[in-house]
Amino acid sequence: MNVMFLGTGAGIPAKSRNVTSIALQLLEERNAVWLFDCGEATQHQILHTTIKPRKIEKIFITHMHGDHIYGLPGLISSRSFQGGEGLLTIYGPKGIEEFVRTALSVSSTYLTYSLKFIEIKEGIVFEDHLFQVSAKKLEHGIDSYGYRVKEKDLQGTLLVDKLGDIGIKPGPIYQKIKRGETITLEDGTFINGAEFIGPSQKGRIVSILGDTRYTKNSLELARDADLLIHEATFSEEDEKLAYDYFHSTTKQAAKIALHSNARKLILTHISSRYQTEEDLGTLVKEAQAIFPSSFIASDFMQVEIPKKREHI
Amino acid sequence: MNVMFLGTGAGIPAKSRNVTSIALQLLEERNAVWLFDCGEATQHQILHTTIKPRKIEKIFITHMHGDHIYGLPGLISSRSFQGGEGLLTIYGPKGIEEFVRTALSVSSTYLTYSLKFIEIKEGIVFEDHLFQVSAKKLEHGIDSYGYRVKEKDLQGTLLVDKLGDIGIKPGPIYQKIKRGETITLEDGTFINGAEFIGPSQKGRIVSILGDTRYTKNSLELARDADLLIHEATFSEEDEKLAYDYFHSTTKQAAKIALHSNARKLILTHISSRYQTEEDLGTLVKEAQAIFPSSFIASDFMQVEIPKKREHI
Repeated sequence: MNVMFLGTGAGIPAKSRNVTSIALQLLEERNAVWLFDCGEATQHQILHTTIKPRKIEKIFITHMHGDHIYGLPGLISSRSFQGGEGLLTIYGPKGIEEFVRTALSVSSTYLTYSLKFIEIKEGIVFEDHLFQVSAKKLEHGIDSYGYRVKEKDLQGTLLVDKLGDIGIKPGPIYQKIKRGETITLEDGTFINGAEFIGPSQKGRIVSILGDTRYTKNSLELARDADLLIHEATFSEEDEKLAYDYFHSTTKQAAKIALHSNARKLILTHISSRYQTEEDLGTLVKEAQAIFPSSFIASDFMQVEIPKKREHI
Repeated sequence: MNVMFLGTGAGIPAKSRNVTSIALQLLEERNAVWLFDCGEATQHQILHTTIKPRKIEKIFITHMHGDHIYGLPGLISSRSFQGGEGLLTIYGPKGIEEFVRTALSVSSTYLTYSLKFIEIKEGIVFEDHLFQVSAKKLEHGIDSYGYRVKEKDLQGTLLVDKLGDIGIKPGPIYQKIKRGETITLEDGTFINGAEFIGPSQKGRIVSILGDTRYTKNSLELARDADLLIHEATFSEEDEKLAYDYFHSTTKQAAKIALHSNARKLILTHISSRYQTEEDLGTLVKEAQAIFPSSFIASDFMQVEIPKKREHI
């Protein structure tokens, strides 16, 4: 589980930062990549990575502003051109299907795979045995959502060697032990199943928020997140600008990380007014003063989200 | 008058070639830039040039395939963001307005300038005192057009010094001389106005063709062109592929240049199967064997179209 930033700028592309897209790489977990937003030239950015478009299984759109969606038609078309066959599901606010279908239709683009759209509302937008993704509205003038990706807890594996050591051979008894039941053996010995199960793995939480003002809904989305990705279009000095344009400052993002008990904060959607190393140093310091584990995203930056091997 | 190639690849973007867009820079002639096609990330390419988006006055779309139009919404939005105020007119086949208006509408994008669409048919699509642009259908499976940009001939300027030498002072007589009339002076001398007008400048012709098979309509579009820009998606060896996919080979493009009496041919829309210097060398040689003044476009290549100072 690994995040790669494909675009970390605000509004319009710049040489140093493309418009927004974030890849959540779930190769080990589900041999798939999920994208969050898809600004123009996201497919161009992907050319410089190891991401294979055919492995992109889901795209979650936070909101409908152009710098978050204009890369969809091209990416979707190229995925087809490059032999993508698996279903691609796009989650997003009202309008996303109309936009993509119009683009594909006027350009006579026929895909080699099925495309499905899910118009999101607040609540759970996707769930299977491995992950749950929920969404909540933020505050951005138009509908803008934050996504909370929760990996499900993984039960520990059966400690077969340890069972062998006390002479218990594979058979239906293994299922009972795996369920943690207490079992009486033929010789009258009791064994506690829980002692023969390895450490479970607590599911990780990644919270990826769309453009927003400072809002308390962000706290719920980011609660106990291993990684919170929050916009910080402006420096704390420009709090008024941030408010007027429905964006956040570094300090506001850091407060969300602090109060939600997140482990790590990455700031993205950085305005092109902050260009120099010095500017960026100031931004990160503003956040770190409140939440020490704060970082500023750059295009192609990768962040590993380590497994949490522990009893749950 | 100068052409800059912003994208010279076919179908999908590659690291070395972006999808199609060509800028015709008319800074001296009308302080404006015209684009021909606008594939995804055209605005990103422009970041690496001196082109100012607000100076883009017209965009001519050859056909509706995604690799020629998906950059429009982003470019149009950014032009607004960067303070563009002048009218932007987009010429193209049916569907172009629906595509752009849908993208702008779903993304709640409001422009600082007016946007006008002209759905083209064969014939003259634009004309003013400086230029005439006409279009003709090519052969590409869907409607695909070629554009012929004809600069109007410019009359020579009045040779004021030469008039001074024979003692003729500025006054209403200058207008008559400028019209080339024969005039009788007060002392009875005849003067021939035509002798006091500098060389006229013959208008230049640039022909920019959309994706197409080898078709005779191209000949009319390219007739006597100073510069013909023609696609050559395939090598001459792959003539069958070219035919099947409604594209052209190097040799076919060169034949059009030869038979239309063009001065210079630039091949573009090069398939990503031709990557190496050797591959590209082969392509250019195939064309030059038929039409010696053939070149292969690369992204950011610039071509000056020299003025033709001569009597007309």
